Amino acid sequence: MADKKAIVLLSGGLDSATCCAYARSMGFKIYALSFLYGQKGFYEISAAQKIAAQTGAVEHRILEIGLGEFGGSSLTTEAPVPTSEPVAEGIPSTYVPARNTIFLSYALAYAEVTGAFDIFIGTNSLDYSGYPDCRPEYLEAFEKMANLATRSGIEGHHLTIHSPLQNLNKAEIVRKGTELGVDFSLTCSCYQPTPDGKACGECESCRLRLRGFAGAGLTDPIEYIKK
Amino acid sequence: MADKKAIVLLSGGLDSATCCAYARSMGFKIYALSFLYGQKGFYEISAAQKIAAQTGAVEHRILEIGLGEFGGSSLTTEAPVPTSEPVAEGIPSTYVPARNTIFLSYALAYAEVTGAFDIFIGTNSLDYSGYPDCRPEYLEAFEKMANLATRSGIEGHHLTIHSPLQNLNKAEIVRKGTELGVDFSLTCSCYQPTPDGKACGECESCRLRLRGFAGAGLTDPIEYIKK
Repeated sequence: MADKKAIVLLSGGLDSATCCAYARSMGFKIYALSFLYGQKGFYEISAAQKIAAQTGAVEHRILEIGLGEFGGSSLTTEAPVPTSEPVAEGIPSTYVPARNTIFLSYALAYAEVTGAFDIFIGTNSLDYSGYPDCRPEYLEAFEKMANLATRSGIEGHHLTIHSPLQNLNKAEIVRKGTELGVDFSLTCSCYQPTPDGKACGECESCRLRLRGFAGAGLTDPIEYIKK
Repeated sequence: MADKKAIVLLSGGLDSATCCAYARSMGFKIYALSFLYGQKGFYEISAAQKIAAQTGAVEHRILEIGLGEFGGSSLTTEAPVPTSEPVAEGIPSTYVPARNTIFLSYALAYAEVTGAFDIFIGTNSLDYSGYPDCRPEYLEAFEKMANLATRSGIEGHHLTIHSPLQNLNKAEIVRKGTELGVDFSLTCSCYQPTPDGKACGECESCRLRLRGFAGAGLTDPIEYIKK
């Protein structure tokens, strides 16, 4: 177990930080993976770096990938990030086409070259029910495909996609993260933070986060422009 | 049908050119997709551009992606491309970890933003039996995952991964391409071409190609350094 490696998708947000701490608590050596894909929340990468360092990650790779070039999401185009109440029904405009599939595919490549058989992703069904690629049936299908895609699958190893936050709501994730020693002051969840990392307090992600801390009876340690 | 769009993965090689012509022969509007991923065969991208133009592609996207950074393949590292006879058993060193999964994931994003429900990939089981991500069971699993991953799947459209060359050998692909009007002089299959596009004649890909033309009783129109 001491040498078991895990690839952890690390966006720099509250969920992925908790997911990373979870993987570490299971005894995995952490190989963190982040992406620059044209997102507005550029600051989140520096959050990811701090979280990787705090978690004692063995390695942290940051890949610049061409996903934003396709457009199709308010996170990667000039379209405004929605801030209106209530949190919308259906697929939000912040959904980035095939994002988790592309992220997990890179994680799969990274797993193959490092000899890891475990990939962690901080998706959850409750707060992101509108994102097709956050659903458990999607993750199961990805795992099946991944085991047919790679050398390790052919050689008889089983690759597992772990989604430890899948059934938790934001308040439960905040509690779980606190329990696991996550330093939430390092995390960035905002879809449109200021260059020095202040959260807007208005986008869907900020509102979910604030509601999560309130639900957990805790105070969010990050700075907000407005809340 | 006149408005049906297809995403075609276009490497610039003989197989993908034939696959592209096949999609066009089915009446699809072609949205071609190529990648710069750190491969040694940089010339193949200019081949892909010529093929896209000759096929009358509506659009040709070339994405620079960070795949080569992981290493793990003789196509993207300093390791020599193997040239020894015979064509090796097992998984070749030219296998790039998770390459087709990453390529197909981008194709999925591209399909979603263009409103295409068909993706074409020129894999085949016979000549590339050593590559796990060229097998039909892998492609079926990818298609299942893809239909759970995206907005179009949720909205009731079915996304299909087409692999029209899956059961053809190289000689049959050469015949099929000829029948479909592919200009093979534009294609580049070599793993290590010269900067002006001459094929080495020695790598596995060149040897498979030459054997394919010989088997089809045709002459390969491209230039070789040695054959």
